[in-house]
Amino acid sequence: MPKAIKKRSVKTGLPPGALIHIGERHVEHANIALFEFDESRFIEKEIHDLEEMRIPADKTGVTWINIDGLQDIPLLEQVGQVFGLHSLTLEDILNTEQRPKIEDYADYLYIVLKIFNIKSDGGLSLEQVSMVLGPNWIISFQEKGGKLLDPVRERLRAGRGRLRKAGPDYLAHAIVDGIVDSYFVILDSLGERIEELENTLISHPIPETLQAIQRLKREMILLRKSVWPMREMIGSLGRSDSPLIRESSLIYFRDVYDHAVQVIDTIETYRDMLSGMLDIYLSTLSNRMNQVMKVLTVIATVFMPLTFIAGIYGMNFKYMPELEWTWGYFAVWGIMVGIAVLMLIYFKHRKWL
Amino acid sequence: MPKAIKKRSVKTGLPPGALIHIGERHVEHANIALFEFDESRFIEKEIHDLEEMRIPADKTGVTWINIDGLQDIPLLEQVGQVFGLHSLTLEDILNTEQRPKIEDYADYLYIVLKIFNIKSDGGLSLEQVSMVLGPNWIISFQEKGGKLLDPVRERLRAGRGRLRKAGPDYLAHAIVDGIVDSYFVILDSLGERIEELENTLISHPIPETLQAIQRLKREMILLRKSVWPMREMIGSLGRSDSPLIRESSLIYFRDVYDHAVQVIDTIETYRDMLSGMLDIYLSTLSNRMNQVMKVLTVIATVFMPLTFIAGIYGMNFKYMPELEWTWGYFAVWGIMVGIAVLMLIYFKHRKWL
Amino acid sequence: MPKAIKKRSVKTGLPPGALIHIGERHVEHANIALFEFDESRFIEKEIHDLEEMRIPADKTGVTWINIDGLQDIPLLEQVGQVFGLHSLTLEDILNTEQRPKIEDYADYLYIVLKIFNIKSDGGLSLEQVSMVLGPNWIISFQEKGGKLLDPVRERLRAGRGRLRKAGPDYLAHAIVDGIVDSYFVILDSLGERIEELENTLISHPIPETLQAIQRLKREMILLRKSVWPMREMIGSLGRSDSPLIRESSLIYFRDVYDHAVQVIDTIETYRDMLSGMLDIYLSTLSNRMNQVMKVLTVIATVFMPLTFIAGIYGMNFKYMPELEWTWGYFAVWGIMVGIAVLMLIYFKHRKWL
Amino acid sequence: MPKAIKKRSVKTGLPPGALIHIGERHVEHANIALFEFDESRFIEKEIHDLEEMRIPADKTGVTWINIDGLQDIPLLEQVGQVFGLHSLTLEDILNTEQRPKIEDYADYLYIVLKIFNIKSDGGLSLEQVSMVLGPNWIISFQEKGGKLLDPVRERLRAGRGRLRKAGPDYLAHAIVDGIVDSYFVILDSLGERIEELENTLISHPIPETLQAIQRLKREMILLRKSVWPMREMIGSLGRSDSPLIRESSLIYFRDVYDHAVQVIDTIETYRDMLSGMLDIYLSTLSNRMNQVMKVLTVIATVFMPLTFIAGIYGMNFKYMPELEWTWGYFAVWGIMVGIAVLMLIYFKHRKWL
Amino acid sequence: MPKAIKKRSVKTGLPPGALIHIGERHVEHANIALFEFDESRFIEKEIHDLEEMRIPADKTGVTWINIDGLQDIPLLEQVGQVFGLHSLTLEDILNTEQRPKIEDYADYLYIVLKIFNIKSDGGLSLEQVSMVLGPNWIISFQEKGGKLLDPVRERLRAGRGRLRKAGPDYLAHAIVDGIVDSYFVILDSLGERIEELENTLISHPIPETLQAIQRLKREMILLRKSVWPMREMIGSLGRSDSPLIRESSLIYFRDVYDHAVQVIDTIETYRDMLSGMLDIYLSTLSNRMNQVMKVLTVIATVFMPLTFIAGIYGMNFKYMPELEWTWGYFAVWGIMVGIAVLMLIYFKHRKWL
Repeated sequence: MPKAIKKRSVKTGLPPGALIHIGERHVEHANIALFEFDESRFIEKEIHDLEEMRIPADKTGVTWINIDGLQDIPLLEQVGQVFGLHSLTLEDILNTEQRPKIEDYADYLYIVLKIFNIKSDGGLSLEQVSMVLGPNWIISFQEKGGKLLDPVRERLRAGRGRLRKAGPDYLAHAIVDGIVDSYFVILDSLGERIEELENTLISHPIPETLQAIQRLKREMILLRKSVWPMREMIGSLGRSDSPLIRESSLIYFRDVYDHAVQVIDTIETYRDMLSGMLDIYLSTLSNRMNQVMKVLTVIATVFMPLTFIAGIYGMNFKYMPELEWTWGYFAVWGIMVGIAVLMLIYFKHRKWL
Repeated sequence: MPKAIKKRSVKTGLPPGALIHIGERHVEHANIALFEFDESRFIEKEIHDLEEMRIPADKTGVTWINIDGLQDIPLLEQVGQVFGLHSLTLEDILNTEQRPKIEDYADYLYIVLKIFNIKSDGGLSLEQVSMVLGPNWIISFQEKGGKLLDPVRERLRAGRGRLRKAGPDYLAHAIVDGIVDSYFVILDSLGERIEELENTLISHPIPETLQAIQRLKREMILLRKSVWPMREMIGSLGRSDSPLIRESSLIYFRDVYDHAVQVIDTIETYRDMLSGMLDIYLSTLSNRMNQVMKVLTVIATVFMPLTFIAGIYGMNFKYMPELEWTWGYFAVWGIMVGIAVLMLIYFKHRKWL
Repeated sequence: MPKAIKKRSVKTGLPPGALIHIGERHVEHANIALFEFDESRFIEKEIHDLEEMRIPADKTGVTWINIDGLQDIPLLEQVGQVFGLHSLTLEDILNTEQRPKIEDYADYLYIVLKIFNIKSDGGLSLEQVSMVLGPNWIISFQEKGGKLLDPVRERLRAGRGRLRKAGPDYLAHAIVDGIVDSYFVILDSLGERIEELENTLISHPIPETLQAIQRLKREMILLRKSVWPMREMIGSLGRSDSPLIRESSLIYFRDVYDHAVQVIDTIETYRDMLSGMLDIYLSTLSNRMNQVMKVLTVIATVFMPLTFIAGIYGMNFKYMPELEWTWGYFAVWGIMVGIAVLMLIYFKHRKWL
Repeated sequence: MPKAIKKRSVKTGLPPGALIHIGERHVEHANIALFEFDESRFIEKEIHDLEEMRIPADKTGVTWINIDGLQDIPLLEQVGQVFGLHSLTLEDILNTEQRPKIEDYADYLYIVLKIFNIKSDGGLSLEQVSMVLGPNWIISFQEKGGKLLDPVRERLRAGRGRLRKAGPDYLAHAIVDGIVDSYFVILDSLGERIEELENTLISHPIPETLQAIQRLKREMILLRKSVWPMREMIGSLGRSDSPLIRESSLIYFRDVYDHAVQVIDTIETYRDMLSGMLDIYLSTLSNRMNQVMKVLTVIATVFMPLTFIAGIYGMNFKYMPELEWTWGYFAVWGIMVGIAVLMLIYFKHRKWL
Repeated sequence: MPKAIKKRSVKTGLPPGALIHIGERHVEHANIALFEFDESRFIEKEIHDLEEMRIPADKTGVTWINIDGLQDIPLLEQVGQVFGLHSLTLEDILNTEQRPKIEDYADYLYIVLKIFNIKSDGGLSLEQVSMVLGPNWIISFQEKGGKLLDPVRERLRAGRGRLRKAGPDYLAHAIVDGIVDSYFVILDSLGERIEELENTLISHPIPETLQAIQRLKREMILLRKSVWPMREMIGSLGRSDSPLIRESSLIYFRDVYDHAVQVIDTIETYRDMLSGMLDIYLSTLSNRMNQVMKVLTVIATVFMPLTFIAGIYGMNFKYMPELEWTWGYFAVWGIMVGIAVLMLIYFKHRKWL
């Protein structure tokens, strides 16, 4: 969190629209892939010359340009010129600390989304995915690249489903749908960690358990922070009146909206579960203290009277009749054993043993 | 919870409308029952050939098709073709991880509901019930089958009430009403468990009590997660302007809405009660600790001074006048008993005994 | 709570509008009282023949029929026929587990209210009061009967105030006003119990105090559950556009609305107070534990060193010079007293004594 | 709180509009002061004959009547007749348990406000101020009288500011503004008490500290209960479309609204601070317990082994070689001191000392 | 907080619009700087004669007047006259206890903002920045002056970006943007303190840690109190329909709005983190207590039985056979060591060591 803020705060004092890449560099140089398709046609190529991406006015079908990596600012500026993007759009694409949102720039829709990746240490790392949806084209920007969009590409290549027949709005839907689905994978993994933690919690809670609970709680907060605005955003896509989204596509966005709500429901349920686990942890501490105290009390209660009796007959008074008795010593032993047994029965009765 | 997510996450990367049954198989093969009725007529038959369910354009009366079991995907696709269902509708019927919702596809309304069954170990298992409500027909899908709809069937057969005279919207109402009523049965059972737990809590709280409270809390969360969207959904049925729901039926849906609100009220009350029980549990732990500590303190406070006195007269000083006195030993006993009695009176006074 | 649910769940599977009395029987047979009045006229009679309650079309003035006891279902069905009540209205009158609500059936308004009675053991018992408000008549149904409406009757008989001059809507207002006022009596009594509990809490908190707090909290939840929807209901009466409520009566309902808001404010204040009392209870437990531990620590800290010194001179070494000294014994006593006094001064200083 | 309710509950069963003074008597008999002014004129007189307050139809300028004390019911009824007040208005003026609110009676606006006074014991006492705002007159009612409105009177007499030039709506604004400002004085005093309490909390928390926190919390609840509806009320004044409030005055009410919001912000901040103080109090208790336990543990851990060693050489075995050694006694002392020093170093290391 | 209130409460009883500077004096005398610019022109000068700031009716370009320091009331009154500001605007500029807000006075917009400075002791100090936005001029008021607006001035001088070309609304945006960005710097610093605190918390929590947490929490409350209304205010700027804000500038305000939302998100995340830290602190206390108790219990449990055995053979009975045995002493030592070892194994097994 603090890091994100630190990165953001370097922009202080710069004019809006000043293009600075806020975020870490993840890939060496940007990779640009272009897809052109309609029901009958499908072209896929890698682009190096930016002129290749200019779309002739009379072109039919859908063009999808996918850019992995954001550090090449001149490239982005060129993209902006070719497709007529507002300077604020470019700034937002570069600033990877955005919240998920949708912005309607009349000529195009600008969509920001967040995806999570599970790091090797089990933590979550955020990645920003931006999309610009035009009348017959769509440009997607991925901070780190990766396989997130592979299934969509596969479906395009295979020509399965509506994807090739429908317009760029349906392709946008496919991408958003894939991103929301990726949250289920994350939640799956978090759910498993919660379950493991629950078992640990009951068998042998340690301070580390508490820290693990807190860590999971914080990851839930992170997820929540991304999913809530994403839900809102998808919801407004589902009732959009922009001409860029056809009437017939709205229902698909509403379907994704239902999935986003389900993600939120699950996050809220996990949060409730983690709160419950905190209660269990704290009461387990109390319970243990109780048990430690009981052991101490039992030991003290049994041995203090016995030591007292031993002390009595260790006194050096001249006249102590019991000391003279032949069976005195054994009698005292008998009394001591008797007291100890009675004590133990008493504690058994009070369920302290 | 994690399981539901896991099941959901297998769909990642598939196009929307791809028909995959998400959920466990509960019945060997789907059972299809068809009911045709109007005020004067009532036909009930089991269907094996799917052509039998096609409804002639000139048919009067209401046709109700009930399908138990969702694993037969080709069958569902055929149903979809016969009744003109959207592919998203079919996908939602198969995906049993839906939230309760209503969707208006102009030609028909698609309704998803959840019911709970009490498992043999007292836990709750979820089941999804879907309905598609057309102009003169209704199709219901039950994940596990079961007796939930038997009372509705009985009423149809008996021809009692408005059911035979009214349209499919009223039949839909009867089904929704039956489902909301089934929540009262669940709450009844949970209420009993809460009451039992409360008695245990006061008589002899153990760590298991806490776990039972947490388990109940989680079941409340589960119920809540289903009932809140169900309430919303029934509410929007009650003020629906779809031509598929007649003006005269709205009041019945508003009546069911009141019941759903009552279910939510009860759930919230139970949640408050369970929170109160957690407070009682934790303060009981503190109380017990207090009592253990009091026992320890009483014992230590009584025996430490006595042992000290015994230690004094166990010293081996040459010149200790008391040791020579004839009644010294008995005097010491007297002093010891006196101290012990005073201590006990003091503790009695402070209410520690 | 569980009982209410149990009662409700017996209706599972019955068609809506099926008349079953849900609730306990409180009076042997229903009592029907009829009042007819306008500015100049006042007739009061008990009714046995149901035909007597039919209101001729040309009748002027207001007719109020009050029915105590709900178990006589055929009677209610007849009332329903005479006044043209919807079957759902009759069902709701009989089902005493309703939330407060208002329903506009065009021809009449149906109003459900809840009142609380204080039971002999200080607990609260609920009672449902229903009203049906027609153009020139009003029917009220009380589950248990009782004196709740006596003041209204008195005012009618005395002809005081606007009551005789105004229409049935003003009479309805008078009844609702009386019911809201009855909550002040309940809150008065609960406020006294809270005050008593607070005194106990500070002087000598015991586990029973906690249970009393929880009991009061639960009663607050119960009250809240009734008052919130009642407020909403009265609020919608105050801005009603039904022709059954005259413009000039709205201000009276808005006045009652203010009272209902005041009831809610008081309930919320009590809830806050009870939460504060829970905090005090728990911290009192901690405080006590602290005090017990201090006593133990003081005793142990004073006597352990002394016993150790006594133990030293109880050793049987051949050569222990102190033992030979004439004043050794007394010197040891001196040292012991010195240590004890120093310890006590130290504890005094640390405010442990 | 309970007292307020008790007072309210005496009205149970009376018709609305029945004039009963609910509240304590604060002044012997009502004082009526009349002010008449316009830009050039200013008359101030005390009124005894009620006819004097009747305003001739052709009178110009503003008339302000201020009444201190509410127990003279016939007087109020006369005022009601002279100015044409609704019976509910009169009832509300007398019932000093109102929430702040505004009511639009077409001919006049009725405004209820609450002010707090600091009692000699530091507690808060409530007082109700009502205003009736007519087209060219304003009547204010103060339960206890007092100096609250003196600054307004002063400004009128001095003819400073807009007050003399503007209409009665601006005068109403001046009164409301004075009342909101009086909350800042209260908050000032509460803020000081919170600061004092914070110092006590850190230096030496005692159970009384907790009670003081709870008392302050309750006063916050009281304040909140008055300020929230007041804010709402002032807000609706600021966007009022009543002809009684001129367009040009609205901005002044919106200015007061900002002050009311600031009062609420401060109350919420104080509440948060008090909650934080409760956490500190409870953790201080735990901390102390920890320290008590550490002292006990250090003492026990040092002296138990030493006492054991002394006990060893107090045994009376025939053959115990150490006892015969010349330096045995001193060697044992050496060992004991060594053990004690090692223990203390260990505890130092663990930061227990 | 209390100080702010105290300052506010001195105004009690004064008419609205009375100009009193509420706040501390920060600069000796007000500094007035004037900037005039359009695309081709840029004039910057310090103003001493107030007539210099009067803007001729035919002047083109934008005039920006920046005033540092608020104590010179006659100066402000003159500014008010020159630019036709309402007396309430002047009062609000002087009263530095305002919440962030925007007010539309038709002729100009009045905007209040808050900025935070980090004091040398790490605490936060508030400063108020006001702006008045006219058709072709803008006046900004800074309580303490400072470098906040330097970057904006730099950009003006350099003629970079849109700033010189666009109107005063865009300049207003630049100032608001700079202020929101300054929050990121604050959050950056707070984030670092939270991180440090977290490390301390895990390694060696002390009561001061708790106080530091509470202090940070309070700073979060302070920030929140400023940022929430600021967000609202910027939001309403972004959808403003005032002619003073051009259509083309709205998108820039919406961009700043996104940043404000991000600030709020971060604050909420920090608040959640601090709450989690409180839980960790409290459970750490419990954990420590547990450990202290375990040490005590182990010591007591090991030495009490041993001391008892030593006590036994310290008794002075005439007939105690063991005392006569040659190896008795050594046998007892053996038994004692055996008991101690068994005890330690047992504690090892229970994980107490």
